[in-house]
Amino acid sequence: MSARAAIYRLMHPRVGARGSRLLAVLPELICTAGLLAMIVDTGTPAGSRADLVLSGIVMAVWGFFVAVYALRIWSAPEAPAQHATGAAGARRAYMLSARGWIDLMAALALPVGWLTGLPQRDAQLLAIVWSLKYIRRSGGLTLLWRVLKRAFPALVSVVTVFFVILLIAATLAYVFEREAPAGAFASIPHALWWAIVTLSTTGYGDMVPATTSGRLLAAWVMVSGIVIFALWAGIVANAFAEELRRRDFLKTWDLVAKVPFFQTLGAAAIADIVRLLHARDVAAGTVVIREGQAGDSMYFIVSGEARAMLAPEPVTLRPGAFFGEMALLFGTPRSTTIVITQPCVLLVLDVADFRVLAARRPELINVIEAEGRRRREANAALVHP
Amino acid sequence: MSARAAIYRLMHPRVGARGSRLLAVLPELICTAGLLAMIVDTGTPAGSRADLVLSGIVMAVWGFFVAVYALRIWSAPEAPAQHATGAAGARRAYMLSARGWIDLMAALALPVGWLTGLPQRDAQLLAIVWSLKYIRRSGGLTLLWRVLKRAFPALVSVVTVFFVILLIAATLAYVFEREAPAGAFASIPHALWWAIVTLSTTGYGDMVPATTSGRLLAAWVMVSGIVIFALWAGIVANAFAEELRRRDFLKTWDLVAKVPFFQTLGAAAIADIVRLLHARDVAAGTVVIREGQAGDSMYFIVSGEARAMLAPEPVTLRPGAFFGEMALLFGTPRSTTIVITQPCVLLVLDVADFRVLAARRPELINVIEAEGRRRREANAALVHP
Amino acid sequence: MSARAAIYRLMHPRVGARGSRLLAVLPELICTAGLLAMIVDTGTPAGSRADLVLSGIVMAVWGFFVAVYALRIWSAPEAPAQHATGAAGARRAYMLSARGWIDLMAALALPVGWLTGLPQRDAQLLAIVWSLKYIRRSGGLTLLWRVLKRAFPALVSVVTVFFVILLIAATLAYVFEREAPAGAFASIPHALWWAIVTLSTTGYGDMVPATTSGRLLAAWVMVSGIVIFALWAGIVANAFAEELRRRDFLKTWDLVAKVPFFQTLGAAAIADIVRLLHARDVAAGTVVIREGQAGDSMYFIVSGEARAMLAPEPVTLRPGAFFGEMALLFGTPRSTTIVITQPCVLLVLDVADFRVLAARRPELINVIEAEGRRRREANAALVHP
Amino acid sequence: MSARAAIYRLMHPRVGARGSRLLAVLPELICTAGLLAMIVDTGTPAGSRADLVLSGIVMAVWGFFVAVYALRIWSAPEAPAQHATGAAGARRAYMLSARGWIDLMAALALPVGWLTGLPQRDAQLLAIVWSLKYIRRSGGLTLLWRVLKRAFPALVSVVTVFFVILLIAATLAYVFEREAPAGAFASIPHALWWAIVTLSTTGYGDMVPATTSGRLLAAWVMVSGIVIFALWAGIVANAFAEELRRRDFLKTWDLVAKVPFFQTLGAAAIADIVRLLHARDVAAGTVVIREGQAGDSMYFIVSGEARAMLAPEPVTLRPGAFFGEMALLFGTPRSTTIVITQPCVLLVLDVADFRVLAARRPELINVIEAEGRRRREANAALVHP
Repeated sequence: MSARAAIYRLMHPRVGARGSRLLAVLPELICTAGLLAMIVDTGTPAGSRADLVLSGIVMAVWGFFVAVYALRIWSAPEAPAQHATGAAGARRAYMLSARGWIDLMAALALPVGWLTGLPQRDAQLLAIVWSLKYIRRSGGLTLLWRVLKRAFPALVSVVTVFFVILLIAATLAYVFEREAPAGAFASIPHALWWAIVTLSTTGYGDMVPATTSGRLLAAWVMVSGIVIFALWAGIVANAFAEELRRRDFLKTWDLVAKVPFFQTLGAAAIADIVRLLHARDVAAGTVVIREGQAGDSMYFIVSGEARAMLAPEPVTLRPGAFFGEMALLFGTPRSTTIVITQPCVLLVLDVADFRVLAARRPELINVIEAEGRRRREANAALVHP
Repeated sequence: MSARAAIYRLMHPRVGARGSRLLAVLPELICTAGLLAMIVDTGTPAGSRADLVLSGIVMAVWGFFVAVYALRIWSAPEAPAQHATGAAGARRAYMLSARGWIDLMAALALPVGWLTGLPQRDAQLLAIVWSLKYIRRSGGLTLLWRVLKRAFPALVSVVTVFFVILLIAATLAYVFEREAPAGAFASIPHALWWAIVTLSTTGYGDMVPATTSGRLLAAWVMVSGIVIFALWAGIVANAFAEELRRRDFLKTWDLVAKVPFFQTLGAAAIADIVRLLHARDVAAGTVVIREGQAGDSMYFIVSGEARAMLAPEPVTLRPGAFFGEMALLFGTPRSTTIVITQPCVLLVLDVADFRVLAARRPELINVIEAEGRRRREANAALVHP
Repeated sequence: MSARAAIYRLMHPRVGARGSRLLAVLPELICTAGLLAMIVDTGTPAGSRADLVLSGIVMAVWGFFVAVYALRIWSAPEAPAQHATGAAGARRAYMLSARGWIDLMAALALPVGWLTGLPQRDAQLLAIVWSLKYIRRSGGLTLLWRVLKRAFPALVSVVTVFFVILLIAATLAYVFEREAPAGAFASIPHALWWAIVTLSTTGYGDMVPATTSGRLLAAWVMVSGIVIFALWAGIVANAFAEELRRRDFLKTWDLVAKVPFFQTLGAAAIADIVRLLHARDVAAGTVVIREGQAGDSMYFIVSGEARAMLAPEPVTLRPGAFFGEMALLFGTPRSTTIVITQPCVLLVLDVADFRVLAARRPELINVIEAEGRRRREANAALVHP
Repeated sequence: MSARAAIYRLMHPRVGARGSRLLAVLPELICTAGLLAMIVDTGTPAGSRADLVLSGIVMAVWGFFVAVYALRIWSAPEAPAQHATGAAGARRAYMLSARGWIDLMAALALPVGWLTGLPQRDAQLLAIVWSLKYIRRSGGLTLLWRVLKRAFPALVSVVTVFFVILLIAATLAYVFEREAPAGAFASIPHALWWAIVTLSTTGYGDMVPATTSGRLLAAWVMVSGIVIFALWAGIVANAFAEELRRRDFLKTWDLVAKVPFFQTLGAAAIADIVRLLHARDVAAGTVVIREGQAGDSMYFIVSGEARAMLAPEPVTLRPGAFFGEMALLFGTPRSTTIVITQPCVLLVLDVADFRVLAARRPELINVIEAEGRRRREANAALVHP
């Protein structure tokens, strides 16, 4: 393995490999250290010992991010998906990806501050863009984005209403309260501040209406705030439900198609089954099933490898195999411990869905049942030979 | 084109026409400028230079709205839907429409202030009615309205409970706290102010119970506030879900009926398909599909025109055509870029729904597949002739 | 009609009868007047002229409620449902009903205050029980109650978690903050007040943690508050959806069974149709359909009477008739105005559901279509004879 | 019965046995007394009489928990599920269970305080771990846990966004406000406190931005807070709906399989029926149906015993019997009172679902109808012999 490939491997650890978890979260840990140092530093006297130490940490983390960016550009051609595009193409692809842009911003944050003539303590504040690195990791963000896009037209309407209520409330509050002795409502911009604090039900209490009409107005604003909030929650909840259903369906479909057990089925049957199965990624070393526990699901192996800890010698389960069906068929506790030996993608069939499947596709359950009975007899033969 | 028609066209730009976007948002921009000037003006000393400039802007915007109203009345007979009713009828129709009323209020806001003897700075405050212009644009408001109407009986119950809790809480707070040294709870109207601030969980902190019983009461009011809020959100969320389902169904149905591809189907099959398709309006110039990207939907053209950027010469796609099916059928990246040349209404079939459709209506997918295969061979012939 | 029957009729006005609306809301208006007088009175100096007037109003309303209770007992035997049980039974039934208990409490509120030796101004505060009269009117309260009962086990879990977090947060806040200079966290009961104010995100600001550990604790409490709130909203929203579905289904089923048009259908077909129809009560005088407007639903008359305003002479529509189908069948504007002449119960079929019905039960739509075509020809004959 | 068995029975009262309710809640009552004494004690002067009494109560409750833990270990072998594992195994099983750990922590709380050298008043604060005893009782907690696990990936995304917004808001607030005269935003840690108070819409008001840019930032933070909250509620609501559906399905399935009436059905039919039935546990002595009332459900007895209070002599209903069907079939009020004599598990069939069932499985309803008619005739014979 070349140095470049070693660097690439170090920065893109395979899931399930030894030490891969630590390597995977290391950048986040370093990022957190840098952000913490920057945050705490704002509370120290300039030039104090603590200030120097903390600034040093921020600089070190910045150096790390510069190095990461440089190394990622250098090792980009090692990416498996880029073998065909050539070194320059692979590097451009990385630099134009979302990840590349965030890495660039992380590396440039402090230099931009220095170039614009900010003192060191102020330039450090720009390190806040490092927090975007957290977002990149979160797999669910795409989901959030699709949900907001789906709910967009309805959300725009609610925001419009929110905005109009804000303007009207601020104008009325100014009219009602401008003569009041406290005198906080001196202009509509002041009243707007009160209106947003009240409409969001935050209620700092720095501006409070004193007249009766001002208070009636405030009551209306608060109740409007709650209603708008409820509308928002309702819209988002609906969009979420539809988006999740869509995503689960697609993910499971792709996996079901890979399991030989289901490949004899027609498209209609698969569309039926896909709704009942759920995909799950499992790291190596996980104990999926523990002997003697109660069981409420069975599993199909899509990829990876598991081991059934049977008495004389363990049995290796490969893609296409299934396990855990006995607890569902006979209601008994788990008879064997199953350990994942290679990172696996499993399809999980819950006991509730197993029963629905038994009603709709008895032929499938018959195959599972035959296998389950065969295994039970084999187990019994082992115990009482 | 007569002057009247030109004016009408200027105020009702066709979607997709050159410059139409700017023309469409211009009234909103002017409205925003006027509102901003009015708002900022309340913070300037009367008679100062800034006051004069800002008042001038408000007056100019008012003049614009008066002119808009007059021109809209004058050009109303040009509205396509009104050609049959005659000039007077068309003008009355505009004046009695929601848009007409809002335009009238925008034009009359300041004069009403002057007529009632308000000084200029106070008369300007009436310009706040201009903010209603934002609401008119928001297409989703009808939806919000239908949702609230659907949820009305349940919402009324929650509001009644809200109101009764408010009254009881205020009376009890008055009883518990009227002797307390702070002395803010001097009467039930005062206590009502505290109760609404607490029940909406706004919590200004200007009135806080000091006795133990007052605090227990406050805890109950806060928890009630949360529960009422949750009830509200739950009601609205349900009404939203039903209303959205209804609206999508209707919109898509009308479009499906226009696509020749679906016209051979019976009503039952169409009712089935309509649930799987989603309508989308696309402006001219949009790149719907970009070569080489991953694809997760296919499209049917209901109206408008698109161009497939094929190698020797682009192919024009007209209403009734479909595109994007190859990525769904073969899992390959997009093979062609598709650009919209005339504003289009498209029906989008997501990959998840494509598969459901394949299971339920294999005959439709067969047609799509045959076309897809034909196109793939044609493409291959172009690349390797 | 005997005096007793006249009194009964006065207090139980038939829906749709002349003046019935005013009579129906009169008790609420009087109740509101009494409550307002009581509330405002707490803000007047004792013995002042305003105090005397307002106390007088409260006393008058109390007299009204005593009279109402007495008259309702006296006239109870006139209730149609009680004709068989005899006068004593009818009276007992009223007195033991929820309405009877609320009426009794309204009548006894002030006397209880006097008997326990309260001064007049304090005894009046008991009039707050009159606010329960609002609740009795709200038809949706039964629904709220069923929803809360259905969601009860899940809600109890959330409340338990809420309570445990509250206790732990208060204890920790006391430990962290008791030494802080501000000194508001002097004991756990004090800290509990802070915890509930924070967990409900009310945030009065009268007690604010000053130490770093106290602020971290507060952040955890605030986020817990939001999560608990979200759980609550989620639970209630689900219970609502199920309960509404159940209620609509039952209400519509009963009505569908009364319409001759549907009586030839089997149970399976009816179960299918019931999901598509919605019941609506309509008062006499309502214009359900207005000529020339766009239409998106058709109607079946379950009970009551409507009139189609056809040109030579209006046609009366009786229970079992349907109308409004032409706009759905032909997409034309409404051709006739329909006015309700006797209070009606209508079954509404939305255009979206009409199309679903056309797909599932074409035989029904054929009947409607035949009738629609017949009416169109009749109309055409009227216009162009 | 041995002393050990008697102790076990005392601590695990059978549901429905005489006095079992009091025994079941006794530990919670004692726990509440101990917590209350600990809480109130923090408000008394050290060494005062009240302090001594309250400390005494706390010590007594602690003694009770020590005794409970010891007795539970001793009597663990009496647990029915542990008869096979032997005394040591049963004891270990209890000690390693969640209940065992909580009991241990309750017993060790105070000694841990003493051992670490805390004074008595501070050691008592550790008694707050007793509040975990409430959680153990709440059956719905498993449900909450499964819901949160199901919604985990989406929730993590929202939390990440929450956290990033928090960091950015605090840094910007520090930049905008650090020069402001009030001077509360002295460092980013200070600004973080403001940001969390604002983002959760708590709004204590102890730190309020004073500059215009700070206020615009605050408005953005408040609106973000509402949107994040709405996302959260939407995610949780969806996870709840799915989890509840799954749980009800499983619970009912197990019960349906025990009722002879349903045993002749195939798996597909049972899967259909399970969705319509709901399980309910009923204590002995409950009156499920009261003669003369309106009825909207019928019941199947899964286990336990009920008695129909028929005129000459009551009839005992055993598992497999059903009752309440007459009100559903004939729309009449309940003809008999039904009292539970042994704790029962019932399957409830709501009138709405009864009708759906009649449409889908007429053969089942025919059996119920035949039985209902037979009973009606028998009743009639009793009344008019």
